Amino acid sequence: MIIATDLEGVLIPEIWDAIASEYGIDELHLTTRDIPDFEELMEHRVNVLNREDLRLQDLQKVAQDVMAFPGSTEFLNWGRRRGQIMIISDTFHELSDPLVWEFGGYNLFANQFSTDSKGRITGYKLRIRGMKWRALEKLRDIGFFIVAIGDSHNDLSMLEEAHHPIFFNPPQELREKCSDFPVAETYDELRESILSVPAESIENP
Amino acid sequence: MIIATDLEGVLIPEIWDAIASEYGIDELHLTTRDIPDFEELMEHRVNVLNREDLRLQDLQKVAQDVMAFPGSTEFLNWGRRRGQIMIISDTFHELSDPLVWEFGGYNLFANQFSTDSKGRITGYKLRIRGMKWRALEKLRDIGFFIVAIGDSHNDLSMLEEAHHPIFFNPPQELREKCSDFPVAETYDELRESILSVPAESIENP
Repeated sequence: MIIATDLEGVLIPEIWDAIASEYGIDELHLTTRDIPDFEELMEHRVNVLNREDLRLQDLQKVAQDVMAFPGSTEFLNWGRRRGQIMIISDTFHELSDPLVWEFGGYNLFANQFSTDSKGRITGYKLRIRGMKWRALEKLRDIGFFIVAIGDSHNDLSMLEEAHHPIFFNPPQELREKCSDFPVAETYDELRESILSVPAESIENP
Repeated sequence: MIIATDLEGVLIPEIWDAIASEYGIDELHLTTRDIPDFEELMEHRVNVLNREDLRLQDLQKVAQDVMAFPGSTEFLNWGRRRGQIMIISDTFHELSDPLVWEFGGYNLFANQFSTDSKGRITGYKLRIRGMKWRALEKLRDIGFFIVAIGDSHNDLSMLEEAHHPIFFNPPQELREKCSDFPVAETYDELRESILSVPAESIENP
């Protein structure tokens, strides 16, 4: 069994929110709910960062103070004994690697920033965007049973293709739009949902 | 960067060899070098196990005493700080999970046994066989730089498709057959080989 999970919103709070609050820049609170196209949103963010002269290290300073949700480490430890955990996120390695390290060194598949010699963010490399599912597709083809956990629009492709998708605290509109997905609101409910999968299904996906 | 590595022969000794030695059954020393078709080899092994009345727990008892190669844990810890480690092996989860756990909980993509209620091995599910590369294909498509490490025939598909393949102590015939693959004989040489990849290549595979 492979447990593919989103990072922000499932295991840790949104990092861009923390950056926006720390530096008092409301425009950085915008998410794909406001600007649905992720690349457009990222261009906007990069422009704002450069206008405010915020550099990679300023973002990292905030990210390193972001605290994982209580219970997330225990949930991952539990999951690790039942399958292979893959954290698949539209976050950036430069911000999230230390947080994922604290969890215990899970695989994180995410994006990367491009910076100039002064640490100014000049762009980014999107490895995951819109392709969350693609990272898992072959593993499914080979015959692994896939559990996917996500909370937002950009997780839908991954959730739709998983054998056992779980929404973790999704916004109301998504709950309604995808009413056939099981919903979990706590890590206990996540565990229960995963345990509800018959062993037979996991063995023969 | 993704570091995809074989398990037996690279990080730990061959488990079937240990089983053969422990129970004094020479036929279990046979490998794909003797019976090139893996399924045929596995059928042979299962027949021998049943003939000798060896059950899953007897195999696990041997596997739990298999010692990882000295330096393998340190190599993985080193690699984990440079990329995502995926252990892709034709081994069986029932034998290797505890060993991989001792390394620190890396992702292991491997095969599984089928057993009856008495623990007799009735068959197996091949998830990886001949498909080592397929597990990585999509991650390569997305734009991850792939390092692959292997020592034998069944690693060739993975090595051939990787951006940076490394043979780890391969048999002489493979060294000659694939003379363009870099060879490492120690973990230090593995580290050097990985460090020799230009950062530019890793960023833009």
